[in-house]
Amino acid sequence: MSGLPTEPYKGVRDFYPHEWATLEAIFGIVRATLAKYGYEEYNASPLERAELYESKGNEEIVNEQTYTFTDRGDRKVTLRPEMTPTLARMVAAKRRELPFPLRWFSIPNLFRYERPQRGRLREHYQINVDLLGVKELKADGEIVVVAHTILSAFGAMNDDFVIRVNSRTLLDAACKTCGLSAEAAKAYLRLLDKKAKMPAQEFKLAQTAITAEDPLARIEANDPGIREEKEKLMGLIIAWKARGMTNVVFDPTIVRGFDYYTGVIFEVFDTNSENPRALLGGGRYDDLVSLFGGDPVPAVGFGMGDVTLVDFLTTHDLLPEVTTGPEIYVGTPKESDLTHANLLADAMRGQGLRVFVNITSKSLGEQIKDADRRGIRYFAAVGEDERASGTLRVKRLQTGEERVLALSDVVHFVRS
Amino acid sequence: MSGLPTEPYKGVRDFYPHEWATLEAIFGIVRATLAKYGYEEYNASPLERAELYESKGNEEIVNEQTYTFTDRGDRKVTLRPEMTPTLARMVAAKRRELPFPLRWFSIPNLFRYERPQRGRLREHYQINVDLLGVKELKADGEIVVVAHTILSAFGAMNDDFVIRVNSRTLLDAACKTCGLSAEAAKAYLRLLDKKAKMPAQEFKLAQTAITAEDPLARIEANDPGIREEKEKLMGLIIAWKARGMTNVVFDPTIVRGFDYYTGVIFEVFDTNSENPRALLGGGRYDDLVSLFGGDPVPAVGFGMGDVTLVDFLTTHDLLPEVTTGPEIYVGTPKESDLTHANLLADAMRGQGLRVFVNITSKSLGEQIKDADRRGIRYFAAVGEDERASGTLRVKRLQTGEERVLALSDVVHFVRS
Repeated sequence: MSGLPTEPYKGVRDFYPHEWATLEAIFGIVRATLAKYGYEEYNASPLERAELYESKGNEEIVNEQTYTFTDRGDRKVTLRPEMTPTLARMVAAKRRELPFPLRWFSIPNLFRYERPQRGRLREHYQINVDLLGVKELKADGEIVVVAHTILSAFGAMNDDFVIRVNSRTLLDAACKTCGLSAEAAKAYLRLLDKKAKMPAQEFKLAQTAITAEDPLARIEANDPGIREEKEKLMGLIIAWKARGMTNVVFDPTIVRGFDYYTGVIFEVFDTNSENPRALLGGGRYDDLVSLFGGDPVPAVGFGMGDVTLVDFLTTHDLLPEVTTGPEIYVGTPKESDLTHANLLADAMRGQGLRVFVNITSKSLGEQIKDADRRGIRYFAAVGEDERASGTLRVKRLQTGEERVLALSDVVHFVRS
Repeated sequence: MSGLPTEPYKGVRDFYPHEWATLEAIFGIVRATLAKYGYEEYNASPLERAELYESKGNEEIVNEQTYTFTDRGDRKVTLRPEMTPTLARMVAAKRRELPFPLRWFSIPNLFRYERPQRGRLREHYQINVDLLGVKELKADGEIVVVAHTILSAFGAMNDDFVIRVNSRTLLDAACKTCGLSAEAAKAYLRLLDKKAKMPAQEFKLAQTAITAEDPLARIEANDPGIREEKEKLMGLIIAWKARGMTNVVFDPTIVRGFDYYTGVIFEVFDTNSENPRALLGGGRYDDLVSLFGGDPVPAVGFGMGDVTLVDFLTTHDLLPEVTTGPEIYVGTPKESDLTHANLLADAMRGQGLRVFVNITSKSLGEQIKDADRRGIRYFAAVGEDERASGTLRVKRLQTGEERVLALSDVVHFVRS
């Protein structure tokens, strides 16, 4: 064996039909659920101007963790590492024409330059759901309901996952009551973001270096300086629970990195500790659209990656069934039967069936094995007898059950 | 207005919800049609190793017309300019496990580095349909039937488009009967490929410089050296016509560039001269998979770009209707009605309806205008009366017709 290598580029995936059908079945459930909530799908190119990401002060990330290159027109181009900046750009471009509020979603592929030794993917899909144009908490309320509803649509129960909620304004207020400067507050949040991954002792020590008071203790103690913010968040949580979302909890240690969040933030985790990474995360980002000029457009949304979602669904045995493959295999006893087989197949297609016609010179026995191997559950063959009577002999491969059917009855047998 | 620019990167498109829904409706028809023929969807990353394209001797194209860059691991990476090399790579990688023949399709986005002044797109979508593992002409026969069926599925009639068919083996035989060397034959085909875009006189002159005899005249005259190849092709055309494809014609001037084609080739054109570019094109490429080593895998397929397809459908008034947006708008007379509105909405969603709930403080009159502007055709509001009786007042916005309905009757009214 020589020739070109057959592996895909480092860190990206090939999707063979069954793998792609599984992912599409998952996305299909997400799309149908979102459509019922009035969310509409948008899309954009993975190619973006690099400045779209640099502007948030993330030059280090852009240079070291993204695919960024210079085109022949001397433009710096980045393969999008996340969708939210693109969404903000698109909304800003048509802010005068668009009917706010916008309920939008997208399922883009995202790119990150991961160093090879880490073994993580360089490209993944991410479901992005956003509600723009509403500054009130009812938008935050809705977006978390939608996240919960998507997971429920796969059959997940409340004890399969937990929704951890916090608020950036609450954290800011807590830092303020401790007398922290903006700089110190930033350092504290950066530390808090890593809390779960640190030994408790180490965290305490690092915290003492930043602040004498513990901001989380202020939140716990309902300090007057944080009370209003905490009550708002608790009100939301009560409303979610009233809707049956008993798996929402307040978690003051949720920080969600350092980028554009300005209010409520949340993350969803699998209750099975085999999947420790967050299943989805999001929050409010009221200042992002105004990076493009003009008044701010309040916004709240979340992103959910395909890899963690598939892990979650697999762990809980919730992967949807794939239903796009061929339903019936039309065998050709002799090669000269192909023309007749094509006619029959076309008639069945007219009734909506997904039909695979044999075009090889395999024996009929081999064709049945072939159908089985492809996961096609019904096998039809036309012999001389059936041809004369205008019928079809259809076999349910799993049970061996065989019927001689009129063409118009095949759909019913196959889909029963 | 200041801030970051809101335009997308040069030559790529943003897809706002209505635009994306239109494209998805088109792809939906393609997917459903292909599924009925037993074709299954695969996918891959747009990132490929650059050598995948260089190996065909197209280094000039790779360097000048593709997005190619070097990653930090010193790998040369290309954003795929076409899907067929990826398909060949994937098939070669699993050739021992895959159940041949393969009926596969994909709808990838493809990238080309177009010089800015040409104003052409740098990214487009392309429907790719391939049948691998069958060397006989019945595979070529099927793939053209499938191309025809896809266009027919949109409602296109035989006089809306024409399928021009030729054969590389026929052209090769014609060049051989004229005594052309392999080199001269290559030059002749390169010239023939440009025939349609040249004045007749100029073509004649250039032809004379390559060959004293006219290969097309040999084909026309049924020269014994080409007769067998021509008869094979004519046999195919007769079979297609017998299936009702009266818009297939033999066109010996079709060449389809210089890459990997080895047998039957074809292009489909709009009969409306406003769209002169080929709508789709393809052919047989039996040698591509063996670039990765091992025995050849015979293959035939075609590609159809989204831009020319949309042009065609628009010209012939065949654009499919978009049916994914919200069907009913639930208005909230007072802001405090939101909780009740959400409950009603959830009940309607349970019946499968796509429901948009107002979460702004707009007046009810403004909400009706908002629904209209969004293209949502039904408006439901819950006043005190309806709330007490457990009903819903639903208005068909286009006609003004209004009904007071039980929740369970809303679906029927909206979808009738």
